[in-house]
Amino acid sequence: MKDEKIIEEVIDLIEYKKIKQLREFLDTINEADFPMIFKDLDEEKIIMVYRLLPKEKAAKVFIELDSDDEERLINCLTDKEIKNVMNEIYMDDATDLIEEMPSNVVKRILANTKSEDRKIINELLKYPDDTAGTIMTTEFMDFKENMTVDDAFQRIKKKGLKSETIYKCYVLSVDRKLLGVVDIKSLLVADRDEKVKDIMETNIIKAQTLDDQEEVVKLFDKYDVVAVPVVDKENRLVGIITIDDAIDVMQEEASEDFELMAAMSPTEDSYFKTSVFSHAKNRIVWLLVLMISAMITGAIIEHFETSIATLPILVSFIPMLMGTGGNCGAQSSTLIIRGLATDEISTKDWIKAVWKELRVALLVGIVLAIVNTFRITLQYGELKIALVVSSTMICTIIVSKILGCLLPIAAKKLKMDPAIMAAPLLTTVVDATTVLIFFSIVSSAFQI
Amino acid sequence: MKDEKIIEEVIDLIEYKKIKQLREFLDTINEADFPMIFKDLDEEKIIMVYRLLPKEKAAKVFIELDSDDEERLINCLTDKEIKNVMNEIYMDDATDLIEEMPSNVVKRILANTKSEDRKIINELLKYPDDTAGTIMTTEFMDFKENMTVDDAFQRIKKKGLKSETIYKCYVLSVDRKLLGVVDIKSLLVADRDEKVKDIMETNIIKAQTLDDQEEVVKLFDKYDVVAVPVVDKENRLVGIITIDDAIDVMQEEASEDFELMAAMSPTEDSYFKTSVFSHAKNRIVWLLVLMISAMITGAIIEHFETSIATLPILVSFIPMLMGTGGNCGAQSSTLIIRGLATDEISTKDWIKAVWKELRVALLVGIVLAIVNTFRITLQYGELKIALVVSSTMICTIIVSKILGCLLPIAAKKLKMDPAIMAAPLLTTVVDATTVLIFFSIVSSAFQI
Repeated sequence: MKDEKIIEEVIDLIEYKKIKQLREFLDTINEADFPMIFKDLDEEKIIMVYRLLPKEKAAKVFIELDSDDEERLINCLTDKEIKNVMNEIYMDDATDLIEEMPSNVVKRILANTKSEDRKIINELLKYPDDTAGTIMTTEFMDFKENMTVDDAFQRIKKKGLKSETIYKCYVLSVDRKLLGVVDIKSLLVADRDEKVKDIMETNIIKAQTLDDQEEVVKLFDKYDVVAVPVVDKENRLVGIITIDDAIDVMQEEASEDFELMAAMSPTEDSYFKTSVFSHAKNRIVWLLVLMISAMITGAIIEHFETSIATLPILVSFIPMLMGTGGNCGAQSSTLIIRGLATDEISTKDWIKAVWKELRVALLVGIVLAIVNTFRITLQYGELKIALVVSSTMICTIIVSKILGCLLPIAAKKLKMDPAIMAAPLLTTVVDATTVLIFFSIVSSAFQI
Repeated sequence: MKDEKIIEEVIDLIEYKKIKQLREFLDTINEADFPMIFKDLDEEKIIMVYRLLPKEKAAKVFIELDSDDEERLINCLTDKEIKNVMNEIYMDDATDLIEEMPSNVVKRILANTKSEDRKIINELLKYPDDTAGTIMTTEFMDFKENMTVDDAFQRIKKKGLKSETIYKCYVLSVDRKLLGVVDIKSLLVADRDEKVKDIMETNIIKAQTLDDQEEVVKLFDKYDVVAVPVVDKENRLVGIITIDDAIDVMQEEASEDFELMAAMSPTEDSYFKTSVFSHAKNRIVWLLVLMISAMITGAIIEHFETSIATLPILVSFIPMLMGTGGNCGAQSSTLIIRGLATDEISTKDWIKAVWKELRVALLVGIVLAIVNTFRITLQYGELKIALVVSSTMICTIIVSKILGCLLPIAAKKLKMDPAIMAAPLLTTVVDATTVLIFFSIVSSAFQI
């Protein structure tokens, strides 16, 4: 059913107070679709719909909401209802919730959380930002090494649906060290009396609690796994990262790169949820930095004022030269930044990359210079000007492609995010260089 | 173990002909790590290592290689070895392989493929590019509706490990229509004599064979599923898309956006695998288009030659104004493009988005204009020039932010990729506008 139809149907059923039908209809809606429905309902109707949901689904719907709506909803819920949510949701989601709520709401949430869960949440809150520890959940399926396949099945049945995933189960020693991983598939095809330790995989793809989350999620892509176990320094299993959380991190990291590459401070909030003031704040710092850096280009131009006064036509080529330089640099830096992000290029490859960019730059430069020489000669009948502009073009393209290649690699080497060396900053550097090259060639060609 | 250590160890074991130890060591290496090892070995050693691998692993290692290495390896393999690979790999991987190989290699591959598999491959090859059909695999776990849980377990055991995933199983009617999905978890906790149709989920997240792959992979992110069933027009199940393939598509789409946004034709090849010539080809078309468009800005400047000759200092402000305009536009367009890609912004929201950008632009514009007025007055003692430049700055920021917001939305509306309306093209438009605004204000302020 189309989104609009779903909302219409819900509103109709509420309007006509067809509670039983509404309950049945809500049952057919995926929890991920509720935020969209709630967007079109007022608070009273939201609470009414929410209370019609069965316990488990209510909790799932709750964590799908964005933090503003979560806060609003919590303020309308009874303590018992909050208790239900906290019992049903996973520990990583609970931790996220607590991190996002204001302190008075946090107090109420924690008051309605079981003490053992409170302890886990407090542990999870201690991991530094952007580490594996902050995105893992503490619920997983663990087996003892001397269990049989049959014991394992019993344990899965007993521990029940609360485990975030049972696709991968973990075999632990008595002191909870990670010995191996059992895929549910191998459990299903094994004989009932086989030992889990005989069917477990011992080449384990795993992460440590303090590993950078960006590196950890790369494991999912590289090794095609659906969960990665997280161990502490003593190789004791403390949690797992599931693929849905890994995908969220991948998307976040990509968005962060997009934003950095467009000269903005990255945020996690969505476009419309971010206030005008925050939008401005995220953008203004970089704009100021770049505006002030652009003055260098201005100063160079000022220095060549006499050339300009003598041959004002020269000025009309500046936008084209700067634009082409900027675009060439953006192309190279984007490819390098992307390559570094996907581990396809490493900082050791810098000579190889420069050599490649140099040859590409020559090829591109020559083609563009030829087109340009023709154009200018035809339009103005001035071969000398055409040649000056075209040779500037070739030099600019070479410089900008090599800078576009080296600056992100240098940033990575200095443990900065390579994405900040993308178009805006690079363009500013390239602009200054282009103007300098142009007027140097002009000066020596026309003796002005 | 570190990558370099693994390679060293392999080379050592080959060198000293410790075949047994080498075989054991290879067994501990994940298949995804073999391409890295092969990079450092010559052909003879690659074949030697490859032949030491057990059948199933050999096939897995094979599909991890990039297409050049696959081709080289196939040319060294016997028919029997090729047959083994084709028996072991999934149909979607087989189809990808055939699409990438030159025709003489394809002939040899097909000659060594079972006739029923050949039929499936031919079917898969028929789906149009970038549709769900091209990324799905035809291997999945299907149950009949009257099966019990126990029957289901028997079937899983019998059908065995060949199914790409058994995390989600599908219940089909007699005419193979998709009735429901059973998660392996619910199968495990259910009673043995329950019917699968009683525990299946009937609100199914699914795709059609001809759906756009970009839309289909969004389902994984939105609904946190590990597989999506693909049905034909009659709702018959024809394949499934597994999450590892979905992640590949997500990464591809992100890379494509990055490349488009840096004015390049997107490619699927990796940076170093792409030849200098192809790199140049991918970049040159856009550069030419943008270079020629930049002439418009040049023509506008030419038109105001007298103003420039009178007040050459004006020229030195052009890079800063164009740069700021370009950066402001890039910020807005990136946020909008990203929002459109993640479905957070829809084309219907255009008025809301423009209103937001307009307010952000005013705020940013005023701050930058104030800084700028101070700077110019202090540096040149010319308040009039300072005010002219600052008012141009505010106008430029407003125009570029609104264009940055509207152009991607318009592209989406016209069924083009919004990413082509990113920085490079936008900057060219903004450059021309900035120069026009600047000289118009200059003309009326100084009467030149």
